[in-house]
Amino acid sequence: MIEKIVILGAGNLATQLSLALYEKGLEIVQIYSRTMESASELACKVNAEASNSLQNIKANADLYILAVSDKAMQPVLERISFPMAKLVHTAGSIPVDVFKNYTDTYGVFYPLQTFSKTRKVDFSNIPICIEANKDEFANDLFELGSKISSNLHAISSDQRKQLHLAAVFTCNFANHMYSIGQELLAEKNVDFNLLQPLIKETAEKLTELDPKSAQTGPAVRFDEEIMNSHEKALKDSPDFQKLYRFVSESIYKMHSSKN
Amino acid sequence: MIEKIVILGAGNLATQLSLALYEKGLEIVQIYSRTMESASELACKVNAEASNSLQNIKANADLYILAVSDKAMQPVLERISFPMAKLVHTAGSIPVDVFKNYTDTYGVFYPLQTFSKTRKVDFSNIPICIEANKDEFANDLFELGSKISSNLHAISSDQRKQLHLAAVFTCNFANHMYSIGQELLAEKNVDFNLLQPLIKETAEKLTELDPKSAQTGPAVRFDEEIMNSHEKALKDSPDFQKLYRFVSESIYKMHSSKN
Repeated sequence: MIEKIVILGAGNLATQLSLALYEKGLEIVQIYSRTMESASELACKVNAEASNSLQNIKANADLYILAVSDKAMQPVLERISFPMAKLVHTAGSIPVDVFKNYTDTYGVFYPLQTFSKTRKVDFSNIPICIEANKDEFANDLFELGSKISSNLHAISSDQRKQLHLAAVFTCNFANHMYSIGQELLAEKNVDFNLLQPLIKETAEKLTELDPKSAQTGPAVRFDEEIMNSHEKALKDSPDFQKLYRFVSESIYKMHSSKN
Repeated sequence: MIEKIVILGAGNLATQLSLALYEKGLEIVQIYSRTMESASELACKVNAEASNSLQNIKANADLYILAVSDKAMQPVLERISFPMAKLVHTAGSIPVDVFKNYTDTYGVFYPLQTFSKTRKVDFSNIPICIEANKDEFANDLFELGSKISSNLHAISSDQRKQLHLAAVFTCNFANHMYSIGQELLAEKNVDFNLLQPLIKETAEKLTELDPKSAQTGPAVRFDEEIMNSHEKALKDSPDFQKLYRFVSESIYKMHSSKN
């Protein structure tokens, strides 16, 4: 059973995951971050010790959660010096066997969500993708996960990588479309809030319709007149113009070839 | 005061707008559509007469709402034969003066939302963008709008066109990103529902953070390793691969140049 946890990392995901675990009664014994400032900032919220030295990581925790950036993972692993530790990472695109030369019991605990430091999220419905090299440890991770979410899934490294890629499209790229919308409205002094109900409904529609059936707008009905006039309106933003054309073509292709 | 309304069109928007007006006690006297089938399908839901002939449009309504496709608007206008009619259209990208050779009193009544025939929408928070060639008629349209929504805005043709363009990015293009996510998951037999909380949170985040501050993921932190591995994973979908690279670059550019 997992009770005492060390969190390595103090970024967006580390912050929100630590808070969620702490609020459900888990003991966060230590927060490690490269800078003492960010370690302390998070540690004080979850009643943990802060550390900026991998040499000082406590050896007696039940679980070590590596929530560092993908680039930092290997260097951090090389400097953790207790081979009996149970390790998981929280990364979408890193295979579980990244741990295999470092410890005997390891896994992945990947909450599929977009996290910002300042926005509190409700973990209860966040899918947590779990993978482990041993069944017993997988059970421990499911038990831990069930304390913060009711949406747990056994997901292989290969599936998780695809989920991460799909998440980049559906979250980061969709959000970039919101950013472009905001820039366009600012040019004409129109309040971005006018788009909020549309953005919300576009996301909520998916509970009833799959995204292909839900598609609307000039590209899916191949309304060339509107598309040309939109492209013309974007003449001073060549990047947005190119993107407009490219995504419109992609929509048209998807809908004309496969439906 | 507007009480009796003729709706020209029976598509997604015409359907949802007719239902909303009807439910608030407005009298929908007639639904016109090119085919009797779609005119009747909507007409019977709002207790109206159906017609597929522009010659048979009733002349005594207080308002004629042209909710036809942009392409159909001009041909329909040319065949409406009563010059005293008060006309509005519901289109994002068509200027209000499209009506100026056809009637004296005209305007725009543009509900900024994505509509599907089968998904019922709550109009009460949908922004309705109103424009008219006469103040008195603008007032009538605001009064009508207030019966179905509390989110009314005076928006010029120029601003409305930009809103429509921004809506294509934030709705149609974002939705296309969802479609791509769904295709990617299907390849690995992963349930699309795993992405639903992420998609919802990405949209809801905007009530607290502007989209640029909310951005996360490999592109904004320029994590080349992940981006390369994602591009490699897309090698069998050259269109998605190109889109991945292009949108990632656009994210990186927006965030490196302007923040």
